[in-house]
Amino acid sequence: MKRLLLTGAAGGLGSAMRGRLKGLAEIVRVSDIVDLGRVAAHEEAMVCDLGDRAAVDRLVEGCDAIIHLGGISVEDKFSKIMNANLLGLYNLYEAARANGMPRILFASSNHTIGFYRQDEYLDHEMPMRPDGLYGVSKCFGEALARMYFEKFGQETALVRIGSCMEKPKNHRMLSTWMSYDDFLSMIECIFSVPRLGCPVIWGCSNNDTRWWDNSHVSYLGWQPKDNAERFRAEIDAAVARPKPGDTIAVYQGGPFIDDPIFAED
Amino acid sequence: MKRLLLTGAAGGLGSAMRGRLKGLAEIVRVSDIVDLGRVAAHEEAMVCDLGDRAAVDRLVEGCDAIIHLGGISVEDKFSKIMNANLLGLYNLYEAARANGMPRILFASSNHTIGFYRQDEYLDHEMPMRPDGLYGVSKCFGEALARMYFEKFGQETALVRIGSCMEKPKNHRMLSTWMSYDDFLSMIECIFSVPRLGCPVIWGCSNNDTRWWDNSHVSYLGWQPKDNAERFRAEIDAAVARPKPGDTIAVYQGGPFIDDPIFAED
Amino acid sequence: MKRLLLTGAAGGLGSAMRGRLKGLAEIVRVSDIVDLGRVAAHEEAMVCDLGDRAAVDRLVEGCDAIIHLGGISVEDKFSKIMNANLLGLYNLYEAARANGMPRILFASSNHTIGFYRQDEYLDHEMPMRPDGLYGVSKCFGEALARMYFEKFGQETALVRIGSCMEKPKNHRMLSTWMSYDDFLSMIECIFSVPRLGCPVIWGCSNNDTRWWDNSHVSYLGWQPKDNAERFRAEIDAAVARPKPGDTIAVYQGGPFIDDPIFAED
Amino acid sequence: MKRLLLTGAAGGLGSAMRGRLKGLAEIVRVSDIVDLGRVAAHEEAMVCDLGDRAAVDRLVEGCDAIIHLGGISVEDKFSKIMNANLLGLYNLYEAARANGMPRILFASSNHTIGFYRQDEYLDHEMPMRPDGLYGVSKCFGEALARMYFEKFGQETALVRIGSCMEKPKNHRMLSTWMSYDDFLSMIECIFSVPRLGCPVIWGCSNNDTRWWDNSHVSYLGWQPKDNAERFRAEIDAAVARPKPGDTIAVYQGGPFIDDPIFAED
Amino acid sequence: MKRLLLTGAAGGLGSAMRGRLKGLAEIVRVSDIVDLGRVAAHEEAMVCDLGDRAAVDRLVEGCDAIIHLGGISVEDKFSKIMNANLLGLYNLYEAARANGMPRILFASSNHTIGFYRQDEYLDHEMPMRPDGLYGVSKCFGEALARMYFEKFGQETALVRIGSCMEKPKNHRMLSTWMSYDDFLSMIECIFSVPRLGCPVIWGCSNNDTRWWDNSHVSYLGWQPKDNAERFRAEIDAAVARPKPGDTIAVYQGGPFIDDPIFAED
Amino acid sequence: MKRLLLTGAAGGLGSAMRGRLKGLAEIVRVSDIVDLGRVAAHEEAMVCDLGDRAAVDRLVEGCDAIIHLGGISVEDKFSKIMNANLLGLYNLYEAARANGMPRILFASSNHTIGFYRQDEYLDHEMPMRPDGLYGVSKCFGEALARMYFEKFGQETALVRIGSCMEKPKNHRMLSTWMSYDDFLSMIECIFSVPRLGCPVIWGCSNNDTRWWDNSHVSYLGWQPKDNAERFRAEIDAAVARPKPGDTIAVYQGGPFIDDPIFAED
Repeated sequence: MKRLLLTGAAGGLGSAMRGRLKGLAEIVRVSDIVDLGRVAAHEEAMVCDLGDRAAVDRLVEGCDAIIHLGGISVEDKFSKIMNANLLGLYNLYEAARANGMPRILFASSNHTIGFYRQDEYLDHEMPMRPDGLYGVSKCFGEALARMYFEKFGQETALVRIGSCMEKPKNHRMLSTWMSYDDFLSMIECIFSVPRLGCPVIWGCSNNDTRWWDNSHVSYLGWQPKDNAERFRAEIDAAVARPKPGDTIAVYQGGPFIDDPIFAED
Repeated sequence: MKRLLLTGAAGGLGSAMRGRLKGLAEIVRVSDIVDLGRVAAHEEAMVCDLGDRAAVDRLVEGCDAIIHLGGISVEDKFSKIMNANLLGLYNLYEAARANGMPRILFASSNHTIGFYRQDEYLDHEMPMRPDGLYGVSKCFGEALARMYFEKFGQETALVRIGSCMEKPKNHRMLSTWMSYDDFLSMIECIFSVPRLGCPVIWGCSNNDTRWWDNSHVSYLGWQPKDNAERFRAEIDAAVARPKPGDTIAVYQGGPFIDDPIFAED
Repeated sequence: MKRLLLTGAAGGLGSAMRGRLKGLAEIVRVSDIVDLGRVAAHEEAMVCDLGDRAAVDRLVEGCDAIIHLGGISVEDKFSKIMNANLLGLYNLYEAARANGMPRILFASSNHTIGFYRQDEYLDHEMPMRPDGLYGVSKCFGEALARMYFEKFGQETALVRIGSCMEKPKNHRMLSTWMSYDDFLSMIECIFSVPRLGCPVIWGCSNNDTRWWDNSHVSYLGWQPKDNAERFRAEIDAAVARPKPGDTIAVYQGGPFIDDPIFAED
Repeated sequence: MKRLLLTGAAGGLGSAMRGRLKGLAEIVRVSDIVDLGRVAAHEEAMVCDLGDRAAVDRLVEGCDAIIHLGGISVEDKFSKIMNANLLGLYNLYEAARANGMPRILFASSNHTIGFYRQDEYLDHEMPMRPDGLYGVSKCFGEALARMYFEKFGQETALVRIGSCMEKPKNHRMLSTWMSYDDFLSMIECIFSVPRLGCPVIWGCSNNDTRWWDNSHVSYLGWQPKDNAERFRAEIDAAVARPKPGDTIAVYQGGPFIDDPIFAED
Repeated sequence: MKRLLLTGAAGGLGSAMRGRLKGLAEIVRVSDIVDLGRVAAHEEAMVCDLGDRAAVDRLVEGCDAIIHLGGISVEDKFSKIMNANLLGLYNLYEAARANGMPRILFASSNHTIGFYRQDEYLDHEMPMRPDGLYGVSKCFGEALARMYFEKFGQETALVRIGSCMEKPKNHRMLSTWMSYDDFLSMIECIFSVPRLGCPVIWGCSNNDTRWWDNSHVSYLGWQPKDNAERFRAEIDAAVARPKPGDTIAVYQGGPFIDDPIFAED
Repeated sequence: MKRLLLTGAAGGLGSAMRGRLKGLAEIVRVSDIVDLGRVAAHEEAMVCDLGDRAAVDRLVEGCDAIIHLGGISVEDKFSKIMNANLLGLYNLYEAARANGMPRILFASSNHTIGFYRQDEYLDHEMPMRPDGLYGVSKCFGEALARMYFEKFGQETALVRIGSCMEKPKNHRMLSTWMSYDDFLSMIECIFSVPRLGCPVIWGCSNNDTRWWDNSHVSYLGWQPKDNAERFRAEIDAAVARPKPGDTIAVYQGGPFIDDPIFAED
């Protein structure tokens, strides 16, 4: 790849992946709404508000692949979610359509299905059950991406990320955790498979206590290697085990279930 | 019911249903973004931009049932769809939550699934395949409504309306047509069933050439009586029969499939 | 048929059906644990405790068809249910096995699946979810009957009766009601079809607001004619409409959901 | 339609339908391997061995619709089935491909699924279970037709005919019977629907005791009107009711189940 | 855990597991209807007839976890099965309900589904097909446990044990075998997962020739390590390979299929 | 096994497997329509045209197992396919039926389902979608084998071979490749399992990018060991990566999709 765009590059996940993308493309264009810090030799940085159509057009121009982690990634006020995750995503897809339709990895979320219980095993075609406005915005994103695929042929990987961080932090994340290494190998599969299509991909490592069935995307050849289980003792020591009726033990969406609708100012 | 809110009351479908709602509630509050014409004795009229949160709050206050036909109902610019169908819907649900959670009928659309072929028979749990920005906005709406149901108990009927008009106008509508009478009887079922939940309901009459399976909502007791078939001869006489490869004969979404993304000004 | 056995003939449903069975067989052997009242010319009466193996053997001897309505038919102490519905059913099947395996209609119940919600549409293969000890005893009965079918070839119709009575008495029964006439026509189908097998049959009339799918037993040719809907106005007038969260509006099992486990003396 | 080809026009079903096709097309080209008797004014007759490629080419030339009832329609020697139903079908599809791909109704058969039991309710996607060489040849035909559809766009209706005759003759046919009138209305739907595709259609009337689910082809609008049930008394009087273990009561394929493989001379 | 109750502790499986439970709880209360032999320092022994309600109450009192292996575990007279597996289970669940609802592992059995063929791959929601009275009693147990879960919140693991023994003894057990180590690790998962719910769990090791799909309980994190395959040569040497039509090669229930109904004395 | 018949022994796959079969049976009878080259001590060779019934009878006589790789294995003229794959297969099954019904491995093909896309994950019960006349002939073969199983008890493994060769040659074969070693271990499982039945088995190695789910045949205990992934670098170096819209990247059948119908001479 010549130029790979990474949005949300200053966020938690973006920062972690940014360093790992070197070698995937000649140039990694990193972007965020805030300052992007020190820019490496293989990088170019662009500050961009996703809600700004013209800025997004410039952002996408010249890229032949996009990893879209940008936007609001937790529960927040609707106005903020609307700007970044609804308008922002529309802007991104229009920009992509105008620029040769580079393949897109869209960071969707487990919060599209947060109201399923943890004792339910999900496949990718079960109806969505979002657990808040953030989750609803990701349902919108999946629908938008699918429409651009069917109408125009734009390929997107709809990655329903669980908990992508250095290590799991509580019992629920023993199920939802995805290591940075596994995410990286997933990225490699997504951008190298001859035909991607527009699949839902569950974004978790090869955890013993997983909830999600990825067999439908076996064609990608993704083989996650990590397993949150090795952190169990550490978590048992640090965090009280939830009770059977606790939200964090009942629902896949965990604490988002109890989030309120955030008031506008 | 004391007060039933009808949004989109000046639109095509809204105008047709407005007159039929008398008797369902003591007062029918009719609303639209444009003038509502002559107001009947049992009506009260409120002009309202759905994108205006405060106005929507006033609109919903005091209502114990809502038929939400308002918003953009065809393919349009994203900015207009965003204001009316995304922000507007959020405003409506927040207003409902603040006002006792009156039961809502949400006018979703067959354009949430427009990319299925006409020789496919759909159930309500098949993944959505929207055919344009309008369809995507309805996917958003269904996701939002479901989240409010699971999080707060707000009941909504997600009515995927086919073609609700006086009579079908082309061969495709022999399958998608819903008569005004059948829509009215559906409304009566939705607002009288002891427990509604948050079901998807396919909005078409008892047409011979239907594509959609409503057996999962048998509990509503809705019995559509009309059948588009009686208009076949009329349509055969007036409209050329499509060829097997014509968009209008292939896809459930019909002409929306060929709609472009409308440019902003 | 020469001799048809009707158990539970003195119960509510048994009494209603008893008179209607004339003509189905030369002799109708009526049985119950209590006195059976006046015996018609085509009848023979036998008082029998189903828990008494020898008595049940005598009961079944000489019969070429059995309608088994006997046993406990509401929530009760386990000791009583065990005697009549567990031991009693075992006794009945052993007696049938020793007497030429006459075809059996077993009165199972909607309380085998009472914990499904009323907005769920059930097919016959969904896992059972009983709502009390009575429901559990009917799950046992279905399992026992199936075992006798697979092991020995004993045919049984597993009729999950909804509410078989003269007319529906509340809003829930608008869905669960089965008229006596429809039950009678079902009985005729069950005993005349060349091969019965061991099917689950949902026992309700052709109600507008039904919850259960009987298409898998189309081979029986049963065509229920009645529709509880004609009693809606009467029920609306006599019974308050339940609220969305009331047990009787949420669960298919209705009031059984709230039944306690009855204490032994 | 200008010219409709009917093959097998001298067979049992062909003879019955031949007279009813007048009016569907300006010319009905009737064909069989034997003499076709008196030819009506709207007809043209061509004797043709389906195994003769050149003859089949001439047969199809100029036709814009084909009802293919020709070939062997009962269990027979493999050599005969191979010539008429394997080679013959290949010849027909090649001729169609060379002649503008007229829409085809292919007479498949319930003997493609004959080993399912009569207490099983089938949908069109269940794996085939043929009951003899004849049934296997129809499985071949369905596969061939589907390949021509996917590869070239040739549309075919795969009609799994039950028992299409003047009236049902035994208890099994109370389930499998299709009246001539219902077949005719199906033909009209097949040739008038804008897009046919390549669907499996179960060929039976609206019998009370049906085994097959046609809801997936609701888009055709076919509404069978007849019901074998009205012949039940007549059959009960004329034919002994089968026992539960009799082949004719156990398997959907009925007597074909017991057919041997016919020896070549 | 403070006190873990093990019923059936003197049986074959109970004896094997008893020694392995040390360390799972401060006290292991072992129970059976027969003498329990030498009692270890971490154990307390209680002889108990499961049919004796008061005795079962005392048995359960003070326990915060229950492994219920007790009762009849092979085909037997109905009177014995009724006392231990029907009445006994009711007694156990009532005692649990009165004592804080400790989590229960219920030893269900593959004989709940014994009539499936060995070339069928089962998921946990397929209808039960018991192969004898013992299997029927386990169907009852699963139904009872589920009712207590839905009605009262009592959590139970419904473990359909295959063949839990030191090593497999015949070709069928190459599929059904569960090692003691794997059962122990399953027990640990069941009692440590934050929320158990009421799942069916297939009880077999990670055998090459398994018949059962446990992916729905991935959330438990159970990772069986053993594989019966390493005993194949030993079995091939000691036991004649069954023929394709032998009961032990056809049905999952194996020899139970041929068991008679045992006569009462 | 005494005598194992290998047909197609001079073909590409046949030649490769021929040497590996030593030890599976005392005698390996190798057969083809062309000369079979040097015959080993444990072999006996028979040249045979599968279309010659008498020759096939002699071929099968005395064999207690058959690996049927013979016939046309690529797209070809229908006349050749008909002789070898239709008539030839009928001849083989009739010969087997007359000779004690030795267990058969039938080389079916991925071209029975070639029109599925590569981003679809298939189970064995999905409707067949052949991609040419060769694929259609394999659909015929599967139907014929199943009929002989249900009618006569003849066991067959329907192996839908992907690409069985020394190593994969292009990107598509990274998914479809089956190593010779894995095929050999599959053969061992097929001929040693006590009861085979008539299963569809997907014939590919344990490739990272597989498309097919073999969990339903877990009972065979087949554990493929090879993984095409180790050839990825080699293929990337030698073959241009297909574009998303290339036939070889879209359809499972790969290049066969574009094959024409071959003209007869």
